[in-house]
Amino acid sequence: LGAPGGARRGPRLPAGKSGKSAPIDVKWALGGGGRLTDGLVESAVLPHIGNGTLNELLDSGVMENADGRLALTMDGYVVRPLFFPGGDIGRLAVCGTVNDLAVCGARVRGIALGMILEEGIELSVVERVMASVGAAAAEAGVKIVTGDTKVVGRGQADGMYLTTAGVGIIPKNRELHPSRVQVGDLLLINGPIADHGLAVMLAREMPQVKSVLKSDAAPLNALIEAVLEAGRDGVAFMRDATRSGLAGVAADLASRTGLHIRLDEGNIPIRAETLHAAEMLGLDPLEVANEGKVVLACRAEVADAVLAAMRSHPLGAMAAVIGQVESAEDGLCEIKTTLGGRRILQKPYGEQLPRIC
Amino acid sequence: LGAPGGARRGPRLPAGKSGKSAPIDVKWALGGGGRLTDGLVESAVLPHIGNGTLNELLDSGVMENADGRLALTMDGYVVRPLFFPGGDIGRLAVCGTVNDLAVCGARVRGIALGMILEEGIELSVVERVMASVGAAAAEAGVKIVTGDTKVVGRGQADGMYLTTAGVGIIPKNRELHPSRVQVGDLLLINGPIADHGLAVMLAREMPQVKSVLKSDAAPLNALIEAVLEAGRDGVAFMRDATRSGLAGVAADLASRTGLHIRLDEGNIPIRAETLHAAEMLGLDPLEVANEGKVVLACRAEVADAVLAAMRSHPLGAMAAVIGQVESAEDGLCEIKTTLGGRRILQKPYGEQLPRIC
Repeated sequence: LGAPGGARRGPRLPAGKSGKSAPIDVKWALGGGGRLTDGLVESAVLPHIGNGTLNELLDSGVMENADGRLALTMDGYVVRPLFFPGGDIGRLAVCGTVNDLAVCGARVRGIALGMILEEGIELSVVERVMASVGAAAAEAGVKIVTGDTKVVGRGQADGMYLTTAGVGIIPKNRELHPSRVQVGDLLLINGPIADHGLAVMLAREMPQVKSVLKSDAAPLNALIEAVLEAGRDGVAFMRDATRSGLAGVAADLASRTGLHIRLDEGNIPIRAETLHAAEMLGLDPLEVANEGKVVLACRAEVADAVLAAMRSHPLGAMAAVIGQVESAEDGLCEIKTTLGGRRILQKPYGEQLPRIC
Repeated sequence: LGAPGGARRGPRLPAGKSGKSAPIDVKWALGGGGRLTDGLVESAVLPHIGNGTLNELLDSGVMENADGRLALTMDGYVVRPLFFPGGDIGRLAVCGTVNDLAVCGARVRGIALGMILEEGIELSVVERVMASVGAAAAEAGVKIVTGDTKVVGRGQADGMYLTTAGVGIIPKNRELHPSRVQVGDLLLINGPIADHGLAVMLAREMPQVKSVLKSDAAPLNALIEAVLEAGRDGVAFMRDATRSGLAGVAADLASRTGLHIRLDEGNIPIRAETLHAAEMLGLDPLEVANEGKVVLACRAEVADAVLAAMRSHPLGAMAAVIGQVESAEDGLCEIKTTLGGRRILQKPYGEQLPRIC
C-alpha cells in the first residue's frame, strides 16, 4: 500500500468526510510512494481495512503457517513508456514481486499476473511484454501460476497496466524485521543507485537522446539467498529501494527503529553517467527509484561475509557498506557528504517521477 | 487469465507476428471472459509464460506444499459504475478473490489489494470503497494483509481500478478438479442466477430506472466449507459462475471432462424480475455474470446432503439441483428447456456486458 513508516510518517490527509468542506481530489503526488502516499494509506485506507499484518506495511504481508510463515505481496505497474533501456513493464512486474518476497526472506512459490488492457493496444505489444514476463520468470526461477485479463475502453487506461502478486514461504529460522536492527549494525547495498528511475525518465522525456543508462531491473532472490546463507541471523532487515529510493528506505528504517542512521555519501555506489543525468534533470539520485537494489542491515561481525556473498554474485559486483546504525535515539537518517558536511535525509514528500514503475 | 477450457476452447487469435500482416488490436470483446478471452490467453499469453500450474487455468494456481497445497488467485476489477445496487467495486474485489480460493477448496489465509487511481478522483470515493472492502473482509472473515497504490493521470484510467490477490491452503484431503467429475454426477447451484450482471447493467445504462435488482456479490467461503463438510470427497468440482455466467461454467466443464452435461432449465433458479430485465435488455441470463454463485458437481449419493447444507446457509436458501453429467462422450453441454426442447449451450464468444466486474 505504500512504503513502511513508523510513528512519524506522512502528513495526515484531511479525511474528506465533513459535509461542509470542499471535496478533496487525489493528486498525482499521492501515488509517488513518498510521504504523501503514506498519508493516503494512513488516513484513507488503514482505518477501514487495517489489521496487525497489514499495519506492518512491510514489502509482503506475512502470515503464520505450520510449514514456515507465508508471505504475500502485490504491486501495480503503470510505467511509461512500456519499454525502456534495460527492461519493460513485464520484466519490472516479475522482478518487483520476486524482490518484495525475497527481502522478507521468503522463497517464491508462485506469481500471479493481472493485465488491464486499453482497447486498441496492439496484440504484438502484449505478446512482447508476455515474452519478457516469461524470460524474467525463467531468470528468477519462478512460475506464473495464475492470472487475469481485463479490457477497458479507449482513454480508460494508457495501453497496458500490470499487477503482480506473489506468494512465498519464509523458512522457520529466518526473522527479518526492523525491530531486529541494533546500534552498530552496518548498512549495505548490492550496487549502484538510481539507474532505473533515470533510464525511464530519459526514455520518456528525451527519447531523442541515445543514453547509456539502463534500468537495473533484476530478480534479487538468488543473491539474497546467498546473503542469508553467508550472514544467517546476523542479517537483521532488508528492503528493496524502489519508489522513493535509498533515501526513502534509510529514512523509514530510522523512523521505524527510532535509532539514528548515518549514511556515507562517498561510499554509496553510483555510476558517473547516472550522476550526470541526475544533475542534468535536477533530481537527487538518493530519491530515485531502483528495481534491482537491496539495502540491508546486518551485525558488524557478519558484514564481511555478507559483502563477499554479494560481490560474488553478478548482481552484487559493486556492493558496498554505505552506513551504520548509531546510538542516538532520534529516529533520524543523516548523510555525511563527500565534502564532509552532514544533512538530514527525509523520505521524499510526493511524486518526483510519475509513473516510474 | 480467463476461464478454463479444454481442447476445444476459443478460436486461436492470429499471433500478430508475421511482418506483413496488419497489426492486430486488442478489442473490447477480448476482455469478456468468453471464448475470445480464452483465445487471447492461449495464443498470446501461454506460449510465453505457460507451465503445468498456469496451463490448468483453474480459479487459483495450486502449488504443492508440505502443509497442504497452496492456492494463489488474482482478479482485476474495472466495473462501472463503482457503486451499484447490492455492492460496489470494493465488495466485488474481496468476494471475487475469496470465492476463487474457496471453489478450489482453499481456506483463505490473506488478501492483497492493489489500487490504480485516476488523478482527480475524490478522496471520499476512495474512502467509501475502502470501507466496503473492510466490511466485506469482515463478513468473509479474511484479512487484507498487503497492498499497493498507484496514481495515473487524467484520462489514463476511469476513476479507480482494483486488483485483488489471495492466498489459501487446501487441506490435504480435498481434491476438487474437473478430472474427478464422473458420469452420473449431479450439478447444483446455490441460488438464482444473473442478478449481478443485470443490476450493474441497469445501474449503468438506465440510471433513471429504480430497479429492485441487486447484485448477488457475496463471500461464499463459509457456505462452501459447509458443503464440503456435508459432501466430503463426494464433491468433485466447483466453480463460481462469474463472467460468461452459468453457460460458461457448464460448457467449460463439458469440454474439459469430454462428457455430456445436461442442464434442466426449469430447475435453474432465477428471480422473475431478473428474467424480466434480461428479456428487456435482450440478454441470455445463462450468460450473465454472477458474483455469489457456485456451481458444483457431486456424486448423486451425497447430493441431498450437499443441497441441505446449501439451503441451511443464508446464501443458499434457493439452492437447486440443475443438471447431471451424462455418458455421451461428446464434451457438449445441452439444456432441456422448460418447453421440452433441447439446445446446445456454448461458452459466450466475446463481451456481452463490458466492465461488469
